[in-house]
Amino acid sequence: MSKDILTQQVADLFVKGMPFNQFLAISVDFINANQASISLPWQDVFIGNPAQKILHGGVISAVLDNVGGMLAAASVIDKLTDLDLASVEKKLATLGTIDLRTDYLRPGKGERFTATANLLRSGNKVCVCTMHLHNEEGVHIAFATGTYMVG
Amino acid sequence: MSKDILTQQVADLFVKGMPFNQFLAISVDFINANQASISLPWQDVFIGNPAQKILHGGVISAVLDNVGGMLAAASVIDKLTDLDLASVEKKLATLGTIDLRTDYLRPGKGERFTATANLLRSGNKVCVCTMHLHNEEGVHIAFATGTYMVG
Amino acid sequence: MSKDILTQQVADLFVKGMPFNQFLAISVDFINANQASISLPWQDVFIGNPAQKILHGGVISAVLDNVGGMLAAASVIDKLTDLDLASVEKKLATLGTIDLRTDYLRPGKGERFTATANLLRSGNKVCVCTMHLHNEEGVHIAFATGTYMVG
Amino acid sequence: MSKDILTQQVADLFVKGMPFNQFLAISVDFINANQASISLPWQDVFIGNPAQKILHGGVISAVLDNVGGMLAAASVIDKLTDLDLASVEKKLATLGTIDLRTDYLRPGKGERFTATANLLRSGNKVCVCTMHLHNEEGVHIAFATGTYMVG
Repeated sequence: MSKDILTQQVADLFVKGMPFNQFLAISVDFINANQASISLPWQDVFIGNPAQKILHGGVISAVLDNVGGMLAAASVIDKLTDLDLASVEKKLATLGTIDLRTDYLRPGKGERFTATANLLRSGNKVCVCTMHLHNEEGVHIAFATGTYMVG
Repeated sequence: MSKDILTQQVADLFVKGMPFNQFLAISVDFINANQASISLPWQDVFIGNPAQKILHGGVISAVLDNVGGMLAAASVIDKLTDLDLASVEKKLATLGTIDLRTDYLRPGKGERFTATANLLRSGNKVCVCTMHLHNEEGVHIAFATGTYMVG
Repeated sequence: MSKDILTQQVADLFVKGMPFNQFLAISVDFINANQASISLPWQDVFIGNPAQKILHGGVISAVLDNVGGMLAAASVIDKLTDLDLASVEKKLATLGTIDLRTDYLRPGKGERFTATANLLRSGNKVCVCTMHLHNEEGVHIAFATGTYMVG
Repeated sequence: MSKDILTQQVADLFVKGMPFNQFLAISVDFINANQASISLPWQDVFIGNPAQKILHGGVISAVLDNVGGMLAAASVIDKLTDLDLASVEKKLATLGTIDLRTDYLRPGKGERFTATANLLRSGNKVCVCTMHLHNEEGVHIAFATGTYMVG
């Protein structure tokens, strides 16, 4: 199996295999070993402020953590020399978020939100990503740094 | 109106006035100007890992941000000299999370989760809280530090 | 006085007015309202590891905090409508780091180090910057996010 | 060699083997597998603000990172089954700060500063500590969370 197909399958697993991500209605825009982008539509249940129609901070952190974790997985796959399913599964089973810092920059208003992730460093044990959340008009809503265990 | 009653009303607003918190089914255990505690039951929709029945990191961050924000609000109320509703509302309208760091310590397994918040510093402009998440057996699942705009 | 000259004077104050920055031997490469860059030479006293000739993490955090704070100051000056010295001093007296997260990406080896800062958000009360540290060969040593009180 | 003696030797190495820590004039108050405390006297070279006699944020982060790293090392030693020097050195060679978040709570005024560290989690690969800085009057100056690579 090629690394591209494998990366796409793992991204599908993130989106379809996790009930919370299905609830968020996340879809994958693109993913490769260096960058990933996901998006999701507004839902009224996301409201985190009784006075304003804006995203709850927890929704924002969840989406940013997702796209960072997905990119960390793609980065792990990119380094694999053995692509049989057992090796891949064993490697990805150790994947997890160590810590996440989210900076809430502007109110989470919009109809559709896009979260992108970039690799800061891809090590054998730890992977560090930066993530951004924008709405459909390009307003920069949030920024995050995530550290992921990958080995 | 007393500060205690006002604090309780604001806590109610967090829980009942925010659709995302209703979805999380959060309830307030106790809250005062120095400490707050909230809890929530397991729901299958919280699953963040296709292989294991554990909480999605975004749910964890959301709950920890909630309890920290609630305590920041209680701390603001505690400092008010004028308790008429207009003053309180004006003051609380500026409340918002500046940034949140979550450290994921152990897998989020359990039937009921309790999030507690403590004040590190309560300033006129910024409030800093630390938060902990435990399950019903006392397992320490996550830790967070939140900075809140309060003025 | 023009904003450019004022910004340069404040940058000089950071470098020459702070004993710890004189110890670090920081010099300002450039600074404007959106970006800043400073650099410093290797010194043996910076060693933070008995076995290797690499920068102590505290030196790295100090340099990144400096360049972020300098940019926050430049951003504050850029928004001023009144440029008399008393107004500027009053405004800058409130400037301070609220919190700083540093991600240590690679060992701090090199002969000369450059720290750059970019604005993520410049608000009336809080300013958020991202910072990078590279050595003279372009190796990416560290990344940081800083939140600064500006009002 | 006992674990206690070994831990003390590693703490000595932090203090005496690192030029930057010698510059800071750090001394170890106590250290065990669960807690560590170090302290240092005021020096004028630490000044980080031209108008006030307060610690530079970089000095604060350096001291907090030190005590956290020292505790991470003690925690690693505590888990070792083989205490010969080669095993210990091999294990400690991998020790490093992954990321550090510092919350600056109050101005760093004082004559002597004490930094304490507590373990949040000690894993096989990653260790998470929280750290506090107080002055000689008990004023709480800063708080930090550090993630350390330990395997």
